[in-house]
Amino acid sequence: MNLLLLFSEDLVAPNEAIVRGDRRDHVARVLRAGPGDRLRVGLLDGMLGQATVTALDDSCLRLALELREAPPEPLPVHLVLALPRPKFLGRILQGSAAMGVKRIVLLGTSRVERSYWQSSILDAEAVGRQLLLGLEQGRDTVLPVVESWPAFRRFVAERLEDLLAQRLGLVAHGDAPTPFPRGPVGPATLFVGPEGGFLDDEVATLRDAGALPVSLGGRPLRVEQAVSVLLGRLMPDFSP
Amino acid sequence: MNLLLLFSEDLVAPNEAIVRGDRRDHVARVLRAGPGDRLRVGLLDGMLGQATVTALDDSCLRLALELREAPPEPLPVHLVLALPRPKFLGRILQGSAAMGVKRIVLLGTSRVERSYWQSSILDAEAVGRQLLLGLEQGRDTVLPVVESWPAFRRFVAERLEDLLAQRLGLVAHGDAPTPFPRGPVGPATLFVGPEGGFLDDEVATLRDAGALPVSLGGRPLRVEQAVSVLLGRLMPDFSP
Repeated sequence: MNLLLLFSEDLVAPNEAIVRGDRRDHVARVLRAGPGDRLRVGLLDGMLGQATVTALDDSCLRLALELREAPPEPLPVHLVLALPRPKFLGRILQGSAAMGVKRIVLLGTSRVERSYWQSSILDAEAVGRQLLLGLEQGRDTVLPVVESWPAFRRFVAERLEDLLAQRLGLVAHGDAPTPFPRGPVGPATLFVGPEGGFLDDEVATLRDAGALPVSLGGRPLRVEQAVSVLLGRLMPDFSP
Repeated sequence: MNLLLLFSEDLVAPNEAIVRGDRRDHVARVLRAGPGDRLRVGLLDGMLGQATVTALDDSCLRLALELREAPPEPLPVHLVLALPRPKFLGRILQGSAAMGVKRIVLLGTSRVERSYWQSSILDAEAVGRQLLLGLEQGRDTVLPVVESWPAFRRFVAERLEDLLAQRLGLVAHGDAPTPFPRGPVGPATLFVGPEGGFLDDEVATLRDAGALPVSLGGRPLRVEQAVSVLLGRLMPDFSP
């Protein structure tokens, strides 16, 4: 755990929190922290910093907080993802959150099986759990927003234009003649298709709306790996 | 399946193969191919091309082969990976093979739990299965070599110099002041640490041997995701 996430309901005073349940257990058993030890913490949708353990018993962890750091810069990339096989979705949500994506749009395309939309992994609670794991991994506090658009035509009619306003649209498509960018491009919306890819007419629809089809080259990658590679290419440089 | 891999023992004539077992079943049931259909195939450590199904029954798939394409260019990056938790190793091997890595060195470091080396996922057969899945994913035929060096000191004494000869060494290390490259660097050896990273003195040892510590910046990533991001940065441009 790179960050212990706190929720507003954990706060018992402005600079004091009491944590119970799984998070208390993790700190006690995995991190083996005790009174006086310091932990890296962050308040969901708020500031980050250090906490000092002031008390720990079988049910409660009491922390004194010094939250003075702003959360890291978000990755200014919205991810529009053809809904993957449910067993892969959790890790993709988690990894995208860890890399700083703040909007994830799950999309139905011709090659997305309709049954995937019934999966319990799409329940708000399950989605939230994956996003929180990603925030803890990436030391961030700002929860991404997840939208679902099972019908491609409706997405195109009602949502696409807004997602491309003031943003560079990039459609990952193996057959595209343009190489995928190798650096930050500013605000962008990245479209990633299902296993087997977008259909040509889906790519044409996205292109007609202003997005640019781009490719990594000849080796097809699994969706989860492709998302990591593509987001990794768009990550900003850091200031050492 | 992006490629059906054939083995020399499948060949019954220079341009004819008979495939049984799981691969026959996959072609029959998942791809639903039958006589006259064409498949993309490749011969392990050999050429790629097309095959035409000439016969299919309950036990055998008979193929007429036209193997005229060389395998894709390898990624000229050797991956030296601190042995990850066994449940993650398979996917990392698979993903690295899919991206064209041809040498993977599994390494023991201070933060690698010794018990991981006893895992059955390290059996030659289990490792081979993951690598073959990666080759099928990435449409490649050239099997990567996997080496294991459980003892860091022995690796440094006996193997490190050779892995850095004529190659740029890159050590992924969150605290490094130099950003990770954004494009191909030619022949390279990439060192990726365990969860929690290399120790500072391990980084110093690799640096003293000539490797350069480099960082992606502030967000720590899971090892599997980091490997995809890092290899993705080093991928060569393709010729459209």
